[in-house]
Amino acid sequence: MEPKEYRSSIMERRKEVLASLGNLGAKIYEQIDRGFFPSIEMPSRSTENIYYDPKFRQYILGDKRVKRSARNIRHLKPFAQLVWTALFSYELTSQRKTSTLRDVYYSAQAYEMTFKDQQESNNIITDLETVLGFSREDFNIFPEERSAVFGDLTISYTVPGYEGKTLNLTSHPDGVMIGPALTSADFVETSADKVIAIEKGGLFTRFIEENVHKKFNAILVLTAGQAPRATRHFIGRLNRELRLPVYVFTDGDPWGMHIAMVIISGSANAAHLRDLTTPDAKWSGVWATDIVNYKLPTDPLDEIDMKRLYELQKDPRYKEDPLWQREIKTFMKIKRKAEQEAFSRYGLTYIVDEYLPAKLEETK
Amino acid sequence: MEPKEYRSSIMERRKEVLASLGNLGAKIYEQIDRGFFPSIEMPSRSTENIYYDPKFRQYILGDKRVKRSARNIRHLKPFAQLVWTALFSYELTSQRKTSTLRDVYYSAQAYEMTFKDQQESNNIITDLETVLGFSREDFNIFPEERSAVFGDLTISYTVPGYEGKTLNLTSHPDGVMIGPALTSADFVETSADKVIAIEKGGLFTRFIEENVHKKFNAILVLTAGQAPRATRHFIGRLNRELRLPVYVFTDGDPWGMHIAMVIISGSANAAHLRDLTTPDAKWSGVWATDIVNYKLPTDPLDEIDMKRLYELQKDPRYKEDPLWQREIKTFMKIKRKAEQEAFSRYGLTYIVDEYLPAKLEETK
Repeated sequence: MEPKEYRSSIMERRKEVLASLGNLGAKIYEQIDRGFFPSIEMPSRSTENIYYDPKFRQYILGDKRVKRSARNIRHLKPFAQLVWTALFSYELTSQRKTSTLRDVYYSAQAYEMTFKDQQESNNIITDLETVLGFSREDFNIFPEERSAVFGDLTISYTVPGYEGKTLNLTSHPDGVMIGPALTSADFVETSADKVIAIEKGGLFTRFIEENVHKKFNAILVLTAGQAPRATRHFIGRLNRELRLPVYVFTDGDPWGMHIAMVIISGSANAAHLRDLTTPDAKWSGVWATDIVNYKLPTDPLDEIDMKRLYELQKDPRYKEDPLWQREIKTFMKIKRKAEQEAFSRYGLTYIVDEYLPAKLEETK
Repeated sequence: MEPKEYRSSIMERRKEVLASLGNLGAKIYEQIDRGFFPSIEMPSRSTENIYYDPKFRQYILGDKRVKRSARNIRHLKPFAQLVWTALFSYELTSQRKTSTLRDVYYSAQAYEMTFKDQQESNNIITDLETVLGFSREDFNIFPEERSAVFGDLTISYTVPGYEGKTLNLTSHPDGVMIGPALTSADFVETSADKVIAIEKGGLFTRFIEENVHKKFNAILVLTAGQAPRATRHFIGRLNRELRLPVYVFTDGDPWGMHIAMVIISGSANAAHLRDLTTPDAKWSGVWATDIVNYKLPTDPLDEIDMKRLYELQKDPRYKEDPLWQREIKTFMKIKRKAEQEAFSRYGLTYIVDEYLPAKLEETK
């Protein structure tokens, strides 16, 4: 099935997920009723079927398909595992309980369904995403929480016990966690006109303390390193539903650059999904050229950093915008990296008073 | 100076911190006025001056003292660094801005104060803690946020822009971050009669979803691995100010066991401080004996796990309560470990329905 277009109502989306899981079950029953061995077809996720698509500005799957049939003895186990995972996901979603990848692996034992290891169960969950075109967060399998948000956005919860309750995301000045309740909430109202995503907790706290949310009308998102998928989905919703431009601030090194890229264009692992990306988001810094222009304190790039730069240079996502190639080349030339905190050499508020407005203007 | 006894009012504590920093400065001026080379004395933090104290149930510093004098050419740089750090901390605290260890390192450059590397600046910050008897969070140098809290506790903020505003910590069902605003808030009201600290995000979410906060009248704290110091301080405040017993749930392995121990008895690194520990907190599981009794799915203990067990066996903190030695021996015997999520083999809610009430009763 084709990945789903975005829908604004969370409740509607949940209904679609349940209908989609119900259909999968109905098809299997139908095949059995008609005397056939049941089978499930889905796009192949093998490397040779993954392409970068400039239109979607992300990796997508090609036309190759695979079939899991109960007729084939080698398919029988993964077929049963996939059907069990669909059943378990249906239970989670309809009972509105959430789970983690790890929990799913252990839960299988309660049903006498065996997975060799967690890698095997993770892989079957990705199969189910591919079959349905929904991401696992849609059927309530969430990553561990670690990212946070702060800013003038009022949300309305849809989780049990909180239906219709609202919260303004400036209520707690350390920020609130981005977990199942937040990601399944509807957006009610905002005065913000942009989203600023930040890699590190120290800077997130600084931005709140310096009233960046007010001075720049911004919703602040802490990615806490590589943004978890639920956070990328949330950033995407802020961009699509509220039409807010997104600016990403990371450390000035290949890893920070790639944190921004994965928010913008996603990863090859999620080529079977659509709404985890925010193609119009901007990487606003710390660029290699910022390191030079702002004379930042630096550390040398080590061998692993350099190897990573060569990989990124060849990556199709890094060929979309000449900015990326320019910055990669500058990193290679200066052979230095700098952290976001390095701006503190000019005083704690320099990053907010000088750097941030300059970069927001430059990457508008 | 002796570590400070706990004070309930956050504002009063801030005044004390500022007074203490002011005194340090005044003493230095006085010495100079009287024609002496200025010097600063503090307890030695060298290994031979760190003792386990059964009364405090934590490591403390002994009687050995060290002196940093501007008269000694080798002391001159660390003396200046310490005085600068006190100045910077005074600015932070009086302007009510926060900073991170990393920010302090870079900020020094704005003052033309040089540190060889971050290790050197971290070390000087610890010196300042030792001199003052306050922890760095008291003078507004915070770790990065990553832990969270959820439960019926109403807090009143003291941070700028939020003075006197209150928030009930059930407002956001994914939990709110434990950062500078939360840790500096006063406690107003709670219906909770216990605190449950949890190592992992997946289980924290499960507990909220299953209404553990209501069913067990509990405030839930996510430590997100080893609890950051600000979180240990917060847990300690819940215990001392609200007189709530604290139960800690971790993975069933030496690392989980030690997460609980550090909440209870602190670390040798913080022997110069007092209020980061919660000596009456209980480690409620996952014990090695739980792995046996509940027949949990396990993984083998590897060499590093076993080595860690031998270290812990000899650690004086692990000799306080026979529970620890029994569990260490059981781990060594079964040579297996289990995660908190392993209970999902009996269904997602088994951990809340069966295990949690049994263990709360057992460790009461």
